[in-house]
Amino acid sequence: MFRPIIAASLLAAASPIIAQVHFSPLVDPKVAVLRDEALTGDHYAWDIVEGLTTEVGPRLAGTEAEARAREWAVKRLNAMGFANVRVEPFDMPVWVRGHESAEIIAPFPQPMVIAALGNSGSTGAEGITGDIVAFDSVDALRAAPNELVSGKIVFVDHAMPANQDGSGYGQFGAPRRQGPTVASQKGALAIVIRSIGTDRHRNPHTGVMTFSDGAKPIPAGALSNPDADQLLRILKRGQPVRMKLVLESSNLGTRQSGNVIAEVPGRDPSLTPILVGGHLDSWDQGTGAIDDGAGVAIAAAAAKRIMDAGRPLRTIRIVWFGAEEMGLFGGFDYRAKYGKQPHYALIESDFGADKIWKIDSKLGDARKAEAEAIGKALAPLGIVTGKFDEADGSDIGPMINDGLPGIGLSQDGTRYFDLHHTPDDTLDKIDPAQLRQNVAAWTTVLAVLSGGIEEPKSRKRR
Amino acid sequence: MFRPIIAASLLAAASPIIAQVHFSPLVDPKVAVLRDEALTGDHYAWDIVEGLTTEVGPRLAGTEAEARAREWAVKRLNAMGFANVRVEPFDMPVWVRGHESAEIIAPFPQPMVIAALGNSGSTGAEGITGDIVAFDSVDALRAAPNELVSGKIVFVDHAMPANQDGSGYGQFGAPRRQGPTVASQKGALAIVIRSIGTDRHRNPHTGVMTFSDGAKPIPAGALSNPDADQLLRILKRGQPVRMKLVLESSNLGTRQSGNVIAEVPGRDPSLTPILVGGHLDSWDQGTGAIDDGAGVAIAAAAAKRIMDAGRPLRTIRIVWFGAEEMGLFGGFDYRAKYGKQPHYALIESDFGADKIWKIDSKLGDARKAEAEAIGKALAPLGIVTGKFDEADGSDIGPMINDGLPGIGLSQDGTRYFDLHHTPDDTLDKIDPAQLRQNVAAWTTVLAVLSGGIEEPKSRKRR
Repeated sequence: MFRPIIAASLLAAASPIIAQVHFSPLVDPKVAVLRDEALTGDHYAWDIVEGLTTEVGPRLAGTEAEARAREWAVKRLNAMGFANVRVEPFDMPVWVRGHESAEIIAPFPQPMVIAALGNSGSTGAEGITGDIVAFDSVDALRAAPNELVSGKIVFVDHAMPANQDGSGYGQFGAPRRQGPTVASQKGALAIVIRSIGTDRHRNPHTGVMTFSDGAKPIPAGALSNPDADQLLRILKRGQPVRMKLVLESSNLGTRQSGNVIAEVPGRDPSLTPILVGGHLDSWDQGTGAIDDGAGVAIAAAAAKRIMDAGRPLRTIRIVWFGAEEMGLFGGFDYRAKYGKQPHYALIESDFGADKIWKIDSKLGDARKAEAEAIGKALAPLGIVTGKFDEADGSDIGPMINDGLPGIGLSQDGTRYFDLHHTPDDTLDKIDPAQLRQNVAAWTTVLAVLSGGIEEPKSRKRR
Repeated sequence: MFRPIIAASLLAAASPIIAQVHFSPLVDPKVAVLRDEALTGDHYAWDIVEGLTTEVGPRLAGTEAEARAREWAVKRLNAMGFANVRVEPFDMPVWVRGHESAEIIAPFPQPMVIAALGNSGSTGAEGITGDIVAFDSVDALRAAPNELVSGKIVFVDHAMPANQDGSGYGQFGAPRRQGPTVASQKGALAIVIRSIGTDRHRNPHTGVMTFSDGAKPIPAGALSNPDADQLLRILKRGQPVRMKLVLESSNLGTRQSGNVIAEVPGRDPSLTPILVGGHLDSWDQGTGAIDDGAGVAIAAAAAKRIMDAGRPLRTIRIVWFGAEEMGLFGGFDYRAKYGKQPHYALIESDFGADKIWKIDSKLGDARKAEAEAIGKALAPLGIVTGKFDEADGSDIGPMINDGLPGIGLSQDGTRYFDLHHTPDDTLDKIDPAQLRQNVAAWTTVLAVLSGGIEEPKSRKRR
């Protein structure tokens, strides 16, 4: 009998009741209402990701398509009523895909499905032909004598699992990140890897890689998972396997990309701003719905919901980063311009649109109570409170490492790497209900961090 | 108490007991044992479909790849110990795919994923560009005035559902089967359809179509479902939509295909044979695992299991039909050569490798008891007995219509049209346990139809 009595007495003072369900007295009822309205009613995020993926589509960093995405973004953010909408341009080296194909020549002639990795060398239109030498991991490739690899087409396999926290991507992404450099250093003609992905479709997963340690660029591509399975079956027959590879690609030199920035001005401009972001660029084969149309949509939708509710004490700064996929160019540009200035918190959404299941934060010991309060406010969304000394995000990662405070809202990544960097990253993969849960979580976090929202007079009068 | 007593008394006379589970006294215990051994132990079917899809891969009708498939088949069927293994060649017109791409030019430039339909006209390498005129069905296209369609690229949509019995394919396949002819007759420049499929991947579904009623061939392609969704979203913005289409394809003239035939000779050659089959050719983009590597594998595996058990009274004739996909050429060739001869039953597997859920038969009124006995023997596999006046199969369909007796074992088609005629038709889509259930069902049917299996002396002596 104890708890109901306490609850009732507190509720009488502060907490609203919706249809006989009592809110936790530990959560500001205004925050709870904003949260629950977003969960059931948000349409801003869907409208943004639907619009961007439909009206722009793929938007590879530094290309004309990414420039159209910036124009679209400026128009949309202005139309939504944000302040200080602007593009902050920066330069970057631009790589683009050309025609690509792979074919087993012997012993069992058949086509395979492949996609060049970002920054791959080009085979030229005529392609190259070579014998396959296969490794189950980059470690195995690294251990191989150069003469085994030299003049061959290297194949590197892996066994990436689908995990909720996406943790397979780090370890099992090595064939893409390190494989091309190691293969090049050992004199390989080219490298093909099993896609860094967890699906079973003929959709190869691209992604960026960089030839480091002076390694000369060689053609580098990813086979779809069913093709990698097929290649392994063919290899297991024990006969030499020859492949023809056409991976045409071009380096276009230095071109312009840019970040798109917009703000909800705070009532006290002297206070440090909250940065909410995602990245505007996408890979070229899908329409960048989960990576990262959803992210820019969630960030802007949450900021818009705060703006609709009134004026926050602190400024909320929306940053739609450019050129994340090719190497965090937008994040580094923002850091160069603003990274020395204090921020109240950095938050980025770049892991799809499935439900958020965990919040981590790194706001510093002095703000532990604030971090805990955010956790309490998120709990009704099914979000567990994780660590207080950890936060991440791709573009914001370097600034968090520099010491700026950050929050990490972790989406469920179980099916993220089925779609990531493939032609299959399209709007239909977004579940509108889970997208709203994301917006609800972000709105909640912003509502707490904002320092209080002053309702507009028109709203008060109602 | 009644049923157990009856069961016990019958079992004492006839039925074997496996680990305390009593078999139905209505089923020949030898048949039950063959069925259950196949269910848990068959490896023949997997070995065939794994071998064919790996060592040959795609095998488009009339091409060099299909010829390699016939060589592979003869070798494999001989190695399995079948008698009278032979190729029966026939001629056919051959169509092959070339380079293909689709692109929205305006208002929102972006690439789309497309595949030419079989017998599509060619755009030539330079492609064609036209405005899209969209219809929700072939009925809507048919009702449109010619001037609305003339000179345009027609898009035809549909809403095919995924059904266990695959029934959506008939009605909702009209855009592929009839759309190109209707569009051509109305003066369309080309036609693109929503893929006749139920998945949400960027894998378009090809399939054959024929320009009839004197319609001149025009380029005809299928967009993947996510691309069709995207095109609709773009169209709904209300601006004119222009598409560039490259569908290069070629007619190679008359080439050779063929059926591969093998037999388990019956003890009494004067009796009519049982035909079991599937088709050896496949579409060119996947490796033809579910369509129809699984089918030829199931048919041959069941025949092999009967042969392993002893000599059937009747001959079992395995037919791996050629060139099914391009128009049942193999089925018509067999019909021309053997269709006037009596057959004891025709059975074909051509609907993937998911579990069989239903048996229909058309053996004639005089054989109703036999048909019922087959149903009883299949029931423990979870197979319902359907109709007694119906059977089907693609290659055998015309002969069943002619009046030859047939049996139809229906596979679960719920996910069949996710994969059908796409690059995604690969080995990993076959569930080995469900494949074994197919073999168990077919072995059961053959065991009953065979007229009794005489065990070899070596087996009897054990």
